[in-house]
Amino acid sequence: MNREIQLIQRPDGTPTHEHLDIVEADAQQPENGEVLVQLLYVSVDPYMRGRMNDAKSYVAPFQLHEPIEGGVVAQVVESKAEAFSVGDIVTGSLQWREVTVASADSIRKVDPSLGSVTTSLGILGMPGLTAYFGLIDIGKPTEGETLVVSGAAGAVGSTVVQIGKLLGCYVVGIAGSDDKTSYIVNELGADAAINYKTEDVAESLQNACPNGVDIYFDNVGGQISDHVYPLLNKFARITQCGAIASYNVPNDQGPRMQMHLIKSSATIKGFVVGDYQNRFKEGFEHLSKWLKGGKLTYEETIHEGFENIPDAFFGLFKGDNTGKQLIKVSNSQ
Amino acid sequence: MNREIQLIQRPDGTPTHEHLDIVEADAQQPENGEVLVQLLYVSVDPYMRGRMNDAKSYVAPFQLHEPIEGGVVAQVVESKAEAFSVGDIVTGSLQWREVTVASADSIRKVDPSLGSVTTSLGILGMPGLTAYFGLIDIGKPTEGETLVVSGAAGAVGSTVVQIGKLLGCYVVGIAGSDDKTSYIVNELGADAAINYKTEDVAESLQNACPNGVDIYFDNVGGQISDHVYPLLNKFARITQCGAIASYNVPNDQGPRMQMHLIKSSATIKGFVVGDYQNRFKEGFEHLSKWLKGGKLTYEETIHEGFENIPDAFFGLFKGDNTGKQLIKVSNSQ
Repeated sequence: MNREIQLIQRPDGTPTHEHLDIVEADAQQPENGEVLVQLLYVSVDPYMRGRMNDAKSYVAPFQLHEPIEGGVVAQVVESKAEAFSVGDIVTGSLQWREVTVASADSIRKVDPSLGSVTTSLGILGMPGLTAYFGLIDIGKPTEGETLVVSGAAGAVGSTVVQIGKLLGCYVVGIAGSDDKTSYIVNELGADAAINYKTEDVAESLQNACPNGVDIYFDNVGGQISDHVYPLLNKFARITQCGAIASYNVPNDQGPRMQMHLIKSSATIKGFVVGDYQNRFKEGFEHLSKWLKGGKLTYEETIHEGFENIPDAFFGLFKGDNTGKQLIKVSNSQ
Repeated sequence: MNREIQLIQRPDGTPTHEHLDIVEADAQQPENGEVLVQLLYVSVDPYMRGRMNDAKSYVAPFQLHEPIEGGVVAQVVESKAEAFSVGDIVTGSLQWREVTVASADSIRKVDPSLGSVTTSLGILGMPGLTAYFGLIDIGKPTEGETLVVSGAAGAVGSTVVQIGKLLGCYVVGIAGSDDKTSYIVNELGADAAINYKTEDVAESLQNACPNGVDIYFDNVGGQISDHVYPLLNKFARITQCGAIASYNVPNDQGPRMQMHLIKSSATIKGFVVGDYQNRFKEGFEHLSKWLKGGKLTYEETIHEGFENIPDAFFGLFKGDNTGKQLIKVSNSQ
């Protein structure tokens, strides 16, 4: 039996099992230029929530009664494409179907001899590149500047914290548990970390940032960001990478923040990693070099079982994961 | 008798006569390096509202029981500074006192032979330079792009509209009366204008911007901006020049807008004209050339009488003015 996970209803708020269904898949047969692959690891990422809405965005919405699509690592089980052989490990954005057809140009090979293949979904994949370009290109960090990172224990945030330290910044991470704040300081090397669920964020931020905030790498938006804006230094830069606090809150309201930008001549720039597609090689080379040199570390939270993908996805919005959230869906490799 | 206008109470909301008082001034005596001047024209500008709050910002707050300070044109009546002679017309940021002392380095001469001296408070002064740098440096307009301007009939906005047209943009102005929208289209040359007080702004914007919005020069913030954000094109730029809709609303709330920035990879940059101090000459030269060449026009709303300065200032927040709001306080010239 082959299974797939379909979007069966669009969520207004927080996604639940009402919105996703696991159903039996139609027979899969690769044509010329395609391969048949077995999924090994599935990545769940906060940005995927946006594709559940029927709204114009930087990627097309998921279609109702069609499978969800996202980052995966898979193994080729049948090939009708010259570039791929049976047994190859590949990565790409594919539908959530245990055994599925992929066109050759939608996947690329992963070399398992270079380390865990899961890094292609994390620190050497989309989240790592997101951290790299968002911090380097928009944050423009210079030595001694104060960098605040929200969602700092997540796949993107944990990489931002470490690159910030590599570049000589004073780094403050914000996350939602004491385990995460310990991880941010002790494993990632941040100078300070704030538990937004137990601390007075405004007060803790002021204490942790005596010289104000020069760069804010924002993965969350919402009330946490409300407390960062008043601390912005002149010419501060905000990397607006995500806004997970608003994803499940229709018409989310908060204090207007334009006046903070005027007062500090600050910049906010939104982005998606695809904006940097023609520079992926540069980002990948830096991240690989740092990783090999022991300058970067990463964490993975790995669940098991294709049927557990939905819960792992829902868990992102409860802050269940530290580092990259993955689901191991097959032992084939 | 010599009078001055003091801040006697800090407003929480909209400023009124409760907050300003006209009082008799102490004797004014210039020291070496100073001049005594008689104010001719006083400029009232929305940014001055921010200085009434006791909060850290890009300029120090006004002090209680001290005169308000702002842009003026004045005439030298006594000089103890080499660079200035009796009769010289000067401009600078001075206290609201009919006859007042000014240090030589806080003022500069205005050449009345080049045109109306009031342009040094408008199109060739702070508002003109604000329009120039905010549009050129942050908006980065290119031919054929769609530029939306809020507060488009004001001193800054009316200049932005015209520079936008000079650079080949498709320009849509937003303002608060039919007289203003007529002015924006017929005098300033905008392609379309929207009366936000009588029209459905979301609908009118969509109709006026069939190709989306590439540049948003924002003087107002608030609900008008809420309707612009969803129309932003990929890599749109927002010049956050002002947020007059929020100035008198403590803790102003509205829809969070971070997700719009992510969806469109858009940038918002706040600024104040002082950020460009070392490029004022460039801006002044462009504005002067365009003005002389008949490529730029400007409007002034001029009230008379020192005692009417407060009402003219309050009127800014009701949208009373078209173009630059000035008060003529003396006929000395």
